[in-house]
Amino acid sequence: MEVYFDNSATTIPYDEVIESVAFAMKNYFANPSSAYKIGMNAERELGSYRDFLASTINATKDELIFTSGGSESNNFLINGFLSPGDNIITTKIEHPSVLNTFKALEALGIETTYINVDSDGKVILDELEAAINNKTKLVSVMHVNNEIGTIQDIDTIGNIVKSKSQKAKFHVDAVQSYGKIDINVKKANIDLLSTSAHKIHGPRGVGFAYIKKGLVPKALIYGGGQEKDFRSGTENLAGAAGFHKAASIIFPNLKQNYKHVTEVKKHFIDGLQNFKDIKINSPLDSNHSPYILNVSFYGLRGEVLLHLLEENSIYVSTGSACSSKNTRGSHVLRAIGLKNDAVEGGMRFSFCEMNTTEQVDYVLSALEKSIKFLRRK
Amino acid sequence: MEVYFDNSATTIPYDEVIESVAFAMKNYFANPSSAYKIGMNAERELGSYRDFLASTINATKDELIFTSGGSESNNFLINGFLSPGDNIITTKIEHPSVLNTFKALEALGIETTYINVDSDGKVILDELEAAINNKTKLVSVMHVNNEIGTIQDIDTIGNIVKSKSQKAKFHVDAVQSYGKIDINVKKANIDLLSTSAHKIHGPRGVGFAYIKKGLVPKALIYGGGQEKDFRSGTENLAGAAGFHKAASIIFPNLKQNYKHVTEVKKHFIDGLQNFKDIKINSPLDSNHSPYILNVSFYGLRGEVLLHLLEENSIYVSTGSACSSKNTRGSHVLRAIGLKNDAVEGGMRFSFCEMNTTEQVDYVLSALEKSIKFLRRK
Ligand SMILES: Cc1ncc(COP(=O)(O)O)c(C=O)c1O
Ligand SMILES: Cc1ncc(COP(=O)(O)O)c(C=O)c1O
Repeated sequence: MEVYFDNSATTIPYDEVIESVAFAMKNYFANPSSAYKIGMNAERELGSYRDFLASTINATKDELIFTSGGSESNNFLINGFLSPGDNIITTKIEHPSVLNTFKALEALGIETTYINVDSDGKVILDELEAAINNKTKLVSVMHVNNEIGTIQDIDTIGNIVKSKSQKAKFHVDAVQSYGKIDINVKKANIDLLSTSAHKIHGPRGVGFAYIKKGLVPKALIYGGGQEKDFRSGTENLAGAAGFHKAASIIFPNLKQNYKHVTEVKKHFIDGLQNFKDIKINSPLDSNHSPYILNVSFYGLRGEVLLHLLEENSIYVSTGSACSSKNTRGSHVLRAIGLKNDAVEGGMRFSFCEMNTTEQVDYVLSALEKSIKFLRRK
Repeated sequence: MEVYFDNSATTIPYDEVIESVAFAMKNYFANPSSAYKIGMNAERELGSYRDFLASTINATKDELIFTSGGSESNNFLINGFLSPGDNIITTKIEHPSVLNTFKALEALGIETTYINVDSDGKVILDELEAAINNKTKLVSVMHVNNEIGTIQDIDTIGNIVKSKSQKAKFHVDAVQSYGKIDINVKKANIDLLSTSAHKIHGPRGVGFAYIKKGLVPKALIYGGGQEKDFRSGTENLAGAAGFHKAASIIFPNLKQNYKHVTEVKKHFIDGLQNFKDIKINSPLDSNHSPYILNVSFYGLRGEVLLHLLEENSIYVSTGSACSSKNTRGSHVLRAIGLKNDAVEGGMRFSFCEMNTTEQVDYVLSALEKSIKFLRRK
């Protein structure tokens, strides 16, 4: 059996997505910015993808800009409205594409604030509220954390941001929630939002940035003026086609998929009851996404366990994929208060709707054997 | 007959490219940053694309960073080394992804210099040489112009830059020359170079940035540290696979293709001898790429002619695709000294190796009829 439990790193593209990418490359090769018919056909096609994708977050077509993915969307949107002296706020458990953007901005004279989270990974709301001042131009909070699956209450946070400031934009990194958990940008008072196609069985190298109507961020990539001058570069129509296809498959099944992965995660957690010296860092509750199960195996090193599982054709991660080659240990597990042994033994199992409880049983048995072997040594 | 003569805007992907994108999506879906086997296989595959692509410009694998295309590469590389007070130099005929990046940098306290070109579009070398001073950190010159095909003598320019300054980096926008005209980054003293896959029958949304060994530009997109921390974001492996495939088809045929499109362009120019009141802005000589033929039809408006040709399923452009919806008229045609009527009647025919002299005959006869019709009105 082969088991891919690393869906938060990237997903297996749907066959229909691969077909739609190939189809668009062949049939909509023309430059959407060209003045002739086949260019305009390409542009119309791109517009229809934009239309549908916008509708999935209760936005409109003119509020959606295609980008090369989640990292670009985060960099672009965070940078969009800043001048030296401004204050920007985020949390201690964000993805590196947010945290490292903040770090780079510090060097440019932007003041940054990092809000703490509790032991579940939930943002301390009082601390956030107190941090917002009249210099604050942006509050960036991820919807679902990529390592431990914590779901932030973005409706409440949006309310806090808007009640404390008229200037502060509310940015949400929705890369791990998009297509999995309902997002309504109007209801949550979201000004800016980032997504990435490859987390929902779409192609890599494409994502979108939602920009609330009326807002005019400065571009990250200047040029020919594509995407309303917010993001230049010849439009990656085939990428957008694949993203559209993935979203159009996943959205009608959102609730059903959620229920299914909840079963998968529950089955996994039930099976872990027999394991000793472990800690579940992402319990099955309303604060955590069912798509992610993070477990610390005390006394073991995640990397070592990872390779033993791999020998059984089981693919998992020790932290976020982006930093899995990084050895300092997860900043997220540290932020929720875990000590060295729990951080070092941290393991992420992340699911998609194609995973099954049978796969969980197979993984549990491989885990049991591997751990026995490692602890005996 | 259908004739696509807008290959400088974008090209029709090779069938093999479409297949390789689909193949990579299916078989190398894993995240190249993952620690397990299938992730490492994906990383090895990406490395082999990088290796080959680097070899095409006489660079090495560690000097090549994948990006989302030409615009991102230009923005990234131009921004890479600057602090307020620096001087940067470019020409008046660059692509908007260079010119608008320069404009944005002015607002950040960077001093910019725009070098004039002669009536062929060639950079005035004395002016360039005189402009380089001890504040100059970057000289950015495009290899082949996207509107009139002027080929800059990058070997000579590289020499000038290096003999005038030890600090100034030499950046080349090679988007229109890559895969068409030989590039040797060592010979031309190039520090930084931009390309885009979709101009050589590869996928849109992917390109590369060459960064000479030892140079450390700051990132444009921060995040998980992919691409040696120069360009974060989950690697678009399928895009890179398609770029690799396109390059591996086009490079062995570079000389032969060049000869073929030279015939096509020659046939076109020969046919134009019978036309009255026209001006060829990109003659068949060593200063101009055979891939681009720019002609001004006096007394006509390019847009109108474009639509008449389109009725005959002939696809051409009035200027660069990126700015073809822009009505101020080409900054390139203005820079080479053309007056209003020549600018307004400007038309770009751009070729690829799949175009034929039969297609040229068809276009010439459609042109003749269209012009007769328009001038008679
Ligand atoms: C000379 C030149 N530079 C840069 C670009 C931008 O490339 P891309 O569309 O891949 O962003 C283009 C094409 O539009 C171009 O012709
Ligand atoms: C929460 C979060 N934000 C941003 C990203 C970056 O997305 P991408 O890899 O498409 O750049 C990721 C995935 O790596 C993520 O999990």
